[in-house]
Amino acid sequence: MRANYKLQRLFIDAALTSGAEVETSREQAHYLTNVLRMREGGEVLVFNGRDGEWHAEVIETARKAVRLRMTSQARPQTPHPDLLYCFAPLKKGRLDYLVQKAVEMGAGRLQPVITQHTQVAKPGTQRLEANVMEAAEQCGILAVPEVLEPVKLDRLLADWEPDRRLIFCDEDAVTNNPMPALSAVREKKLALLVGPEGGFSEAERAQLRALPFVTPIPLGPRILRADTAAVAALAVIQASVGDWE
Amino acid sequence: MRANYKLQRLFIDAALTSGAEVETSREQAHYLTNVLRMREGGEVLVFNGRDGEWHAEVIETARKAVRLRMTSQARPQTPHPDLLYCFAPLKKGRLDYLVQKAVEMGAGRLQPVITQHTQVAKPGTQRLEANVMEAAEQCGILAVPEVLEPVKLDRLLADWEPDRRLIFCDEDAVTNNPMPALSAVREKKLALLVGPEGGFSEAERAQLRALPFVTPIPLGPRILRADTAAVAALAVIQASVGDWE
Repeated sequence: MRANYKLQRLFIDAALTSGAEVETSREQAHYLTNVLRMREGGEVLVFNGRDGEWHAEVIETARKAVRLRMTSQARPQTPHPDLLYCFAPLKKGRLDYLVQKAVEMGAGRLQPVITQHTQVAKPGTQRLEANVMEAAEQCGILAVPEVLEPVKLDRLLADWEPDRRLIFCDEDAVTNNPMPALSAVREKKLALLVGPEGGFSEAERAQLRALPFVTPIPLGPRILRADTAAVAALAVIQASVGDWE
Repeated sequence: MRANYKLQRLFIDAALTSGAEVETSREQAHYLTNVLRMREGGEVLVFNGRDGEWHAEVIETARKAVRLRMTSQARPQTPHPDLLYCFAPLKKGRLDYLVQKAVEMGAGRLQPVITQHTQVAKPGTQRLEANVMEAAEQCGILAVPEVLEPVKLDRLLADWEPDRRLIFCDEDAVTNNPMPALSAVREKKLALLVGPEGGFSEAERAQLRALPFVTPIPLGPRILRADTAAVAALAVIQASVGDWE
């Protein structure tokens, strides 16, 4: 069932049931009243990551919060996506973008990974979470992806779930098409690893390629920036072995 | 043959042959001398969209231009990509990004299209060309995509080449996976049409779906922003019927 994307969607972390009344945050209140000019009787959609999506009516507007009443469920809760998206942090502007795109493309958990050529220090988890939330509200999803604490590549690989396949974007691949490698994937649990702008080091690449749970994929004959590679890889993964089926 | 992406690549519109001497632009000179601190003897790569890519040596640095001598051909010229990428212009920041991504993903010609819900006036062709050039230099391609003058959707469709298949991102599709529709494509000549943030109008969608050269494709169960849809669509197209083979 496709999302109704014409109504404003708000994430509110409160129990949602028929007739329940909840309050927005101050920022949400500002947006509803000052930007959207909503008044009592206005309609929005509310979700919380666990109770599905609800039609809600504005019953009271105030500066600190807008009060909403849940009228009927618009969509039932869908399962939380399983796809683990591992990425080397990029510089701020590009990182925001990369996180938004990952949410739109179905990532279930976002795992920052520190690699040898990672250009930035640990990204702020709060900023990542804010980007995830905004992307979730805008792209119609019902489950909000989790942001994990940054981890070094060695640690990520040492602690890996053996039944989860790790697909990584291999800049040094000798072929161009990812589909043959993807069609060989049998695991239901998947992960994608996208390296930093400077790429993986030789040692990192050798380490990855040697692991039994790793599938390297090429992404065409041209050089892709990390954030392009991320969306392109997610697209071919979702369309072949992911949730676009 | 993969591009050598560690050397600086410059587009210079002059004939490139062994021993040929060419001058950079003022902006390129500034970048080479002040940012990269290059001096005589330094090495760069040069391409012009027709003579392949050349190793070049810095023979003289000056403020107005740096003089380069072609030493040997690094890669022969590849054919100009055929993929026609049609897009409703977005607001400036997102438009720059969309154009860069299209170049990275193999677009041969970029065709701005004015649709009913297009939010911006005609985009400046010069700005688009500058973005295309920068993306071309950075992503290692040898042929520089062409930027066409904006056209209204009606005109685009009325003048369409009947042997070119037009794939468009269909927000109202009832299925999720683009691969079945793409596997049915037989034409060698392809085009992709991505609508504006507000989507196509009902009338536009009906018009597109009725045309014999049009293939609508879904892109998963979530709502994608126009620039995400562009990269995702290009990825699945290139991986199935495009130049990732």
